[in-house]
Amino acid sequence: MVLEAAVGGQCGGQDRTGRPEGPSAAPAAPAQVTLPPPRPARAMIQPVPRLSVPAALALGSAALGAAFATGLFLGRRCSSRRSRREKRLLPPEDSPLWQYLLSRSLREHPALRSLRLLTLEQPRGESMMTCEQAQLLANLARLIKAKKALDLGTFTGYSALALALLGRPLWRKAEEEHKIDLRLKPALETLDELLDAGEAGTFDVAVVDADKENCTLYYERCLQLLRPGGILAVVSVLWRGRVLQRQLQDVETQCVRNLNERILRDARVHISLLPLGDGLTLAFKI
Amino acid sequence: MVLEAAVGGQCGGQDRTGRPEGPSAAPAAPAQVTLPPPRPARAMIQPVPRLSVPAALALGSAALGAAFATGLFLGRRCSSRRSRREKRLLPPEDSPLWQYLLSRSLREHPALRSLRLLTLEQPRGESMMTCEQAQLLANLARLIKAKKALDLGTFTGYSALALALLGRPLWRKAEEEHKIDLRLKPALETLDELLDAGEAGTFDVAVVDADKENCTLYYERCLQLLRPGGILAVVSVLWRGRVLQRQLQDVETQCVRNLNERILRDARVHISLLPLGDGLTLAFKI
Repeated sequence: MVLEAAVGGQCGGQDRTGRPEGPSAAPAAPAQVTLPPPRPARAMIQPVPRLSVPAALALGSAALGAAFATGLFLGRRCSSRRSRREKRLLPPEDSPLWQYLLSRSLREHPALRSLRLLTLEQPRGESMMTCEQAQLLANLARLIKAKKALDLGTFTGYSALALALLGRPLWRKAEEEHKIDLRLKPALETLDELLDAGEAGTFDVAVVDADKENCTLYYERCLQLLRPGGILAVVSVLWRGRVLQRQLQDVETQCVRNLNERILRDARVHISLLPLGDGLTLAFKI
Repeated sequence: MVLEAAVGGQCGGQDRTGRPEGPSAAPAAPAQVTLPPPRPARAMIQPVPRLSVPAALALGSAALGAAFATGLFLGRRCSSRRSRREKRLLPPEDSPLWQYLLSRSLREHPALRSLRLLTLEQPRGESMMTCEQAQLLANLARLIKAKKALDLGTFTGYSALALALLGRPLWRKAEEEHKIDLRLKPALETLDELLDAGEAGTFDVAVVDADKENCTLYYERCLQLLRPGGILAVVSVLWRGRVLQRQLQDVETQCVRNLNERILRDARVHISLLPLGDGLTLAFKI
């Protein structure tokens, strides 16, 4: 009986057939001395399974295991599909590595920071130019000693301010504080006005961050307004990944796709497409 | 009996108590006419549960459901932890959006392309400067009309060639084809030689892509060699995410961390840290 307890409920099952064991059966049939040795002894000699469980328990465990494994598989698959669906190249803003990159490179002017925080509270605030984009543009504008810049699609003026701040020490010196000429009208009208006024080839920097339907027209006019060696920055050229989705044939997505193809083949510019924000194309006019 | 079949095994359980039903019990006790109406009729009046299952089945289903849900939860969590462990900011090279970005922006010279493919076959080939980094650097060098560039950590010469190709039309014109001066010795020696030769402030572009132990020394010497308005590019500043892992205190990782802190606080340069390759810092000398 000790053995049976040790190896589980079914071991030595022969004892459970209702047949009395050797010692208690002997008094009722004393003549049957030639019987084979009592079964418990034989059971102890036979190889005993070390672990055996009822069929129902085994089946139940298998079903539980299968359910768990299915869940695990579907969970991983669903999660990786979710990450594949992500429309941006850069990791989410709370990614530690992205935070490290920003913390080791951003030098945001207090005025810019205030404006950015205010802008982010607006309904479509997240569509503003990102801080690292604005900082790069300001660095490039400084590099070519830009004095005349054009910002198309001003929103709350973050990128315009980033560019305007470059000239601040100069403005103070020259005592002229009104370098930003804000024109609130359809961008095409403004561009045509500038071209009509003979300003082609006079701008150092142009930023195109306006509606997508007209982006190619903006690109062409801005390129005319830039001087050779000037920088044209086009924002949101990945259009949150929609450029990739062939089933999307809306006007905006088509326009962004067409502009990207045109810039790639445009021999008038050298280009770089940077994975900043929603994609930033830099075109350097030759 | 039809009702019982319709609503499941346990409905009308009162019939299963072993007590004979009305008609068969009546002959044995005809005097008991004041008995309550037979139980089946009462059961039909009581609100009957529309679906009832044996307790074992319910328990089993609940256990299966719990196992499935646990697996689903763990699968999603494990998957998102795996993606958090990724050491690079950019998506893998086969990401469709990254492929789109490259296909719409790369204009790689055939010589550069051949050299890149050859380099990638080398044992540590993947540590070379990426093609989009080299293209951006070439664009910037062109922007400032760079004539004199320094490439520290040449490897197979991809970035040096990218910069050298800028001047090619000029070389041909001047019939001088040997603009690349390759010095195969410890980079610090080369830098000190250049400084001793009075070349401080004469370089337009410098690229630091050598060993990490001396990166701060390279940075300081290169900055001296650059002219104001020159561009200093430091490659692999995220060090495959190791800068973030506090438990890593090896010399190389510490050196990269220290250099990043130094550049952030360096008032002699304007900076941008770009998520290209393994992190590219651009420092524009003021």
